[in-house]
Amino acid sequence: MSTFKIKDPSEIGVAFLGVGRMGITHIRTLAGIPNVRVIAVADPNLEAAERGRAIVRADRAVASAEEAIHDPRVEAVVIVTPTTTHASLLELAVKAGKAVWSEKPIALNLTETQRIVDLVETTGIPVQLGFMRRFDPGYVMAKERIETGALGRIETFRALSRDTYPPALEFLKTSGGLFLDMAVHDLDLARFLVGEVREVQAWGSVLIDERFAQADDIDTAVTMLRFWNGALGVVETSRRSAWGYDIRTEVAGSTGKLVVEAPQKTPMVHSREFGFEADHYENFPDRFEIAFRRELEAFFGALTEGRTPTPGPTDALETLRLAVAATRSWREERPVRLDAVTAEIPV
Amino acid sequence: MSTFKIKDPSEIGVAFLGVGRMGITHIRTLAGIPNVRVIAVADPNLEAAERGRAIVRADRAVASAEEAIHDPRVEAVVIVTPTTTHASLLELAVKAGKAVWSEKPIALNLTETQRIVDLVETTGIPVQLGFMRRFDPGYVMAKERIETGALGRIETFRALSRDTYPPALEFLKTSGGLFLDMAVHDLDLARFLVGEVREVQAWGSVLIDERFAQADDIDTAVTMLRFWNGALGVVETSRRSAWGYDIRTEVAGSTGKLVVEAPQKTPMVHSREFGFEADHYENFPDRFEIAFRRELEAFFGALTEGRTPTPGPTDALETLRLAVAATRSWREERPVRLDAVTAEIPV
Amino acid sequence: MSTFKIKDPSEIGVAFLGVGRMGITHIRTLAGIPNVRVIAVADPNLEAAERGRAIVRADRAVASAEEAIHDPRVEAVVIVTPTTTHASLLELAVKAGKAVWSEKPIALNLTETQRIVDLVETTGIPVQLGFMRRFDPGYVMAKERIETGALGRIETFRALSRDTYPPALEFLKTSGGLFLDMAVHDLDLARFLVGEVREVQAWGSVLIDERFAQADDIDTAVTMLRFWNGALGVVETSRRSAWGYDIRTEVAGSTGKLVVEAPQKTPMVHSREFGFEADHYENFPDRFEIAFRRELEAFFGALTEGRTPTPGPTDALETLRLAVAATRSWREERPVRLDAVTAEIPV
Amino acid sequence: MSTFKIKDPSEIGVAFLGVGRMGITHIRTLAGIPNVRVIAVADPNLEAAERGRAIVRADRAVASAEEAIHDPRVEAVVIVTPTTTHASLLELAVKAGKAVWSEKPIALNLTETQRIVDLVETTGIPVQLGFMRRFDPGYVMAKERIETGALGRIETFRALSRDTYPPALEFLKTSGGLFLDMAVHDLDLARFLVGEVREVQAWGSVLIDERFAQADDIDTAVTMLRFWNGALGVVETSRRSAWGYDIRTEVAGSTGKLVVEAPQKTPMVHSREFGFEADHYENFPDRFEIAFRRELEAFFGALTEGRTPTPGPTDALETLRLAVAATRSWREERPVRLDAVTAEIPV
Repeated sequence: MSTFKIKDPSEIGVAFLGVGRMGITHIRTLAGIPNVRVIAVADPNLEAAERGRAIVRADRAVASAEEAIHDPRVEAVVIVTPTTTHASLLELAVKAGKAVWSEKPIALNLTETQRIVDLVETTGIPVQLGFMRRFDPGYVMAKERIETGALGRIETFRALSRDTYPPALEFLKTSGGLFLDMAVHDLDLARFLVGEVREVQAWGSVLIDERFAQADDIDTAVTMLRFWNGALGVVETSRRSAWGYDIRTEVAGSTGKLVVEAPQKTPMVHSREFGFEADHYENFPDRFEIAFRRELEAFFGALTEGRTPTPGPTDALETLRLAVAATRSWREERPVRLDAVTAEIPV
Repeated sequence: MSTFKIKDPSEIGVAFLGVGRMGITHIRTLAGIPNVRVIAVADPNLEAAERGRAIVRADRAVASAEEAIHDPRVEAVVIVTPTTTHASLLELAVKAGKAVWSEKPIALNLTETQRIVDLVETTGIPVQLGFMRRFDPGYVMAKERIETGALGRIETFRALSRDTYPPALEFLKTSGGLFLDMAVHDLDLARFLVGEVREVQAWGSVLIDERFAQADDIDTAVTMLRFWNGALGVVETSRRSAWGYDIRTEVAGSTGKLVVEAPQKTPMVHSREFGFEADHYENFPDRFEIAFRRELEAFFGALTEGRTPTPGPTDALETLRLAVAATRSWREERPVRLDAVTAEIPV
Repeated sequence: MSTFKIKDPSEIGVAFLGVGRMGITHIRTLAGIPNVRVIAVADPNLEAAERGRAIVRADRAVASAEEAIHDPRVEAVVIVTPTTTHASLLELAVKAGKAVWSEKPIALNLTETQRIVDLVETTGIPVQLGFMRRFDPGYVMAKERIETGALGRIETFRALSRDTYPPALEFLKTSGGLFLDMAVHDLDLARFLVGEVREVQAWGSVLIDERFAQADDIDTAVTMLRFWNGALGVVETSRRSAWGYDIRTEVAGSTGKLVVEAPQKTPMVHSREFGFEADHYENFPDRFEIAFRRELEAFFGALTEGRTPTPGPTDALETLRLAVAATRSWREERPVRLDAVTAEIPV
Repeated sequence: MSTFKIKDPSEIGVAFLGVGRMGITHIRTLAGIPNVRVIAVADPNLEAAERGRAIVRADRAVASAEEAIHDPRVEAVVIVTPTTTHASLLELAVKAGKAVWSEKPIALNLTETQRIVDLVETTGIPVQLGFMRRFDPGYVMAKERIETGALGRIETFRALSRDTYPPALEFLKTSGGLFLDMAVHDLDLARFLVGEVREVQAWGSVLIDERFAQADDIDTAVTMLRFWNGALGVVETSRRSAWGYDIRTEVAGSTGKLVVEAPQKTPMVHSREFGFEADHYENFPDRFEIAFRRELEAFFGALTEGRTPTPGPTDALETLRLAVAATRSWREERPVRLDAVTAEIPV
C-alpha cells in the first residue's frame, strides 16, 4: 500500500500537462474545484501553456512537462498530452512521488502498460485513468443498481457507439486502430458493468471511407463477448454518425434490464406537420460534459480523503487486453480467448 | 330497476342506425363481436345501408330507422345518426324496450336531455352513450390508479385537446359551439377522473378562422374548473392542430401524477441530422381506434352479463351541464356555478 | 405465372384450419374483413372447430382439414395448425388450386421447404407466410424509409428479441431450436430491411433454465451477420424476459438511423417518488395485435386485387436457410457461409 | 445610453454579496469564468464570507456589502443576498457606477421596483436580474424557434410548475405570496416566449397545508392569461410535488408547438416487472444547473463585449406587475387588466 499522503487537503498543488482542446475542458474543471491549486501549466507550445495558466490563474506556464512535475509545491499531476507521451510522463510523475490523473490509455501496447501497472503497484502512488464514462450519472446509476442485485443474474450486454466525425487520417495511423482507440470505451463498460471477458470475436468492415483501409484499419465493427460469468454480449462500433453522437448501452439479467442512453440533448420537443422532433447530442464532449467534470472531482476527492482513486492502471491494462484481443480476432478471423493475450504481438 | 333481459346471450339481435364514416367504423367492430348478430341496418340513404349490411352480413338493409328498431328479433339498437336525431331515436328504442348504445350527445340542450334521462330511469332500459375516451386504455388505467388511491388527494386537473382539422362552417352552426361540441370530451374526463365541478370560468378567442366569429362561435378557449372536492383544473381547447391530433390529460395529487398522452403513433424513430423525429396521430379516429372498439364491446359485454352499461344518460346530462356552464361563462364573461345551470337558457 | 383468380372478389370463400389460441385471434380478424366468407372451420377437436365456426358464422365445423379444403366453395385456405402439419396441408391446398395463407414456418428443414417452394412456383398459386412483423406499422414505415433511401448506404443492423415466457419443455423438443423457432423472426427482419446475408456466426448459452440443455438447445444467443452489401449486424435472442416482451430493431446507414420499438404499451405515465413509470407490452400477441390483423388483410387484399401476396415461400426458405446457418454456427463453433447451406444436415 | 465600460475585459473585478446556498452555487460558477476576478466576498456572517472567498480565491472576505461594493478594483457586483436587501444594494452599486447582476426580484412592490428601473435608466449602468430559466437550453431554443417564426401565429401558452418542497412558514410571511414568489417564473416565461399580457384571472386554493391559509396565502393556483397579441394561456402553480420537481411549458401556434420539459434526469431506464421507470429531477437546483451557470456567463459575456445584459430591470418590473395582477385577481375574485395595475395597492 501507498504511503502517499496529501500535505494539506485544503490546497492540493497541481501540475497540468497538455493544453489542447480536452486540456481546456479539464483545466476549466480544475478552476471550479475549491481545494485544487494549479501551480504550473505545461505545454511544448508556450502560448497554449499561457492560455491554460490564465484560465486557472496558475503561477507558471512552462514548456517542459518535466519542470512542471518537479515543482516542489506539486503533489498531483494531470496528464492531457498526446497518447504516445502518457506512459513516460506517468512514469516520471510516479517516480517523483506525485499522484497522477491521466487521460487514457497508458499506452497502446500491453508490455508498456504492464510496466506502469507494476511501477504503480510497487510505489503505491494513487493513479487514475480517464475512462470518463464510468462517471456519467447514467452509468453510475446502472453500476449501483447492478451491485444491489436489481438485475438478478446478468445474461446479456450490448453496447453501441458511433462517433460523430471520423478522425483525420494522420491520427488514424497512430491511433492503435478501431478497437484500441474507440471500441475500448465500450469494452471498458463491459468490464465495469458485467465483469471480465473470457473470449471475444470481432468482424470489421470499411464502409465509411477507403482511407481506413489504407491505414490498415476498419471503420465499422461488430464484436461478440463471452463473459466468465456466462453472460453474452455484443458491441457495435462505427467511426461516423450523421445524426449526432450515438451511444447506447444495455445490460439485461434474470429480473431486469438497464438501458443507459441520453437520446435527447436539449429539453425541448418541436411538434409540426403530424410529427415531432428533438435534438441529439453532437458528440462526446457535450454528451459527457458532466462525466468529464466528475472524473476529476472524484480523483481529487479520493486524494483529499485518502482513498485509492479508480479506475486505476489495472483496469486500464485489462481493458486494453480486451481491445487487443478484439483486434487480433478481427485480423485473424477467429475467436480469441483473453487468457491467451499475454505476450505482446503487434496489433 | 330494469326488467330488461337479453333472451339468448350467445346471439343478441341488433339494429344498426346510420352508416356514415363513424357508422362504418362501428359496424366493423360489431362484425368482430362474436355474440352480436346485426339483423337490420338502417340509413335514409339505402345504398349506405346496403354497404353497412354487407360488411356485417345483416339480414336487411332499410331506409327507416323505425322499421329497423321494431324488428321483433332486435333487442339492442346502435345509433350513429346525426346529432339532431339522437333523442328521438333513443326515445323510440327505449319505448320499444330495446337496449341502446348511442353516439353522444343525447341532445344539445338540457331539457331534452333531462327528458331522456327521466324516460330511461322510468323504463330501466340499459342505455350507454359514446364517450369513447373512457375506454381508451390510458384513461382506463388512470381511472383504476385514481380509484386505488395512487394520487392521494387530487389537487389539479389539466386537459388539452386540439382537433386536427377545423369543422366545416355548415356544421358549426348546429354544433352547439366549441364547448358543447368539442370541449365536452375533456369536461367529461374531468368528471370521470376527478369528480363533479362546482364552478367554471372560460375565455375564448377567434384565432384560427374568422368564420367561427360569423357563426357566433370561437375556435380557441381556456377554461378554469373548481371541483367540489377542492381540486382546480384548466382545460385548453382548439379547433385546429398543424402537428396532428393533440390530446393530453394530467391529474395530479398529493402523492402522484398521471399523464395520459400518446405522443407517438408509429413505433419507429428516425434519427438524422443531429436529431430524431417520430409521428403523431393524425386525428381522433386513429388515436382512439381501440377505444371505439372497446366501448361497443363493453356495452354488449354488459348486456350479456346483465350489468348496467356505463356511461349512461345521467353522465351525458351532467357533462352537458358543465359544457353549458362553460359556454355561459364565456358569453357572459363571468364565473358560472354549476348548480345555477338548471333552467334552460339558450346557449 | 399463376392462372389463379378469385371468382367473386366481393366474397371469397375460405377454409380455416386450426382453432388454437392463435386460431381464435386470426378467425376474429377474418370476421372483420368484409369480403371474406368463411365456409368451413376445421380442427381435429370438433368442439374447437365449432367455437371457431360460431365466431365467424361459418357454414360448417369439421374435424378434417382435408374436407374443409376440398369444399368447392373454398377458394382460399388459412392454416393455423401445428408446425409439423404446415407443409402437408399447404401441399394439399395448393394442389387443390386454393390460395393459402399459412403460419410460418413451412417446415423446419430445407428439403421440405424447398419442395413446397418448387410446388408453389410450378402451380402459380398465391401463398403467403405468417411473418407478421413485416406488417407492424413500425417495420412498414422503416421499410418505406429505407426504400426511399433515407438511410443512404446501410452499415449496421441490430435486432433484440426477448420472449416473455420460456416455452414448455415438451414444445422445445420439436421446436427446431432457438434459431429456427425464435431468432428466425429477427433474421427475417434482417433480410427484409437490409438484404441477403453472406455469413453468420452465433454463440449460445443456457442461462435461464437447464432444461434447455437437456433438450440439446440454448436459451440465450448472440449472432453476427455479414450482409452481401457489406453491412454488419448483431442479433440478440433470449427465451425469457422478466420485464415484458422486449423487441427492438435498429438499422443505421450513412445518412440516418431507424429504430423500431414500442417501449410503452398503455398511453399513461405515472409519476411518483421522484420518478416516473409506464408499462411494457406483455408479449407478442399484444405487441403485434395490429400486425396480426394487417397480415391477413394484406393477403385477402392481394387476392382481391390479383396481386401476388408477400412474403411468400421463397422468403420463408431463405429465412430458414439463415436460421439453419446460425444453428450450425453455434453447434460447430465456426462462421457459416449461407451459400454452403444447401444440402440438408440435421440441425 | 450608458457610458459604462469595463477597463480590462480580460480581468473584471467583482464583489460577491451573500454566501448562502445559492451563493455557493454562483460563486463556483464565477470560479470557472476565466476573465472574472472576484476581489471581495461579503456576508454579514464572516465565516460564510470566508468560505466563499476560499472557493474563488478572492482577495478579501468582509462582513459589509458596502465595503465590498466600494473596493476601487470592483467593476461589477453580484447580489445573492436575501430579497429584502436587493433594491438597496442594487441602488448602492449602481450609484457607485458598478455593473450589477442580482437575484430576482428587485423588490416585492411596484413602487420600489419602478424606482430602480428609473435609476438604472438614468445612469445607464448594465443590470441583469436572475430569471435563470431564460438561460436553460430548452427555453433558449424555444425562444429562437419562436423568433424565426416556427410557430406561426401564437395561439396558446401553458405553464406548469410544482416545487418539490413547500417553503417554511417563516419564509412564507415575507415571500410576497404564491404569485410573486413562485408563479412569477412562469409569468416571466409567458412574457419571454409569447409577449405582454393584457388581462389575468386567477383562482387559488389551500390543498397542501393549512399553514398557507394562516399566512393569508394559497398553495395551489390556476391562472388564465389573455395576451395583447390575442393568444390565451393557463398557468398552474403548486407548492409541493411528491414526484420531484415538475415543470413543463408549452407554446402552440398556427404551424407548430414547442414543449420545454426535462422529464428524465439521469440517462438510465430501468425495466422490470412488465414496465419501466426513470427518475425526475429533484428540484430547481439540479433541473436548472446549466441555466444558473449560463446566466452569469451571459452577464459577464455582455460586459466583456460591451452589450446590454438581459433580462434587465424593466423585465423585472413588467413580470412583477403581472404577478401583482394575478394576486389581485385571486384576492378580489375578478379579472384584472394589467394596465390598471399602476398605482401600488398592497397585495
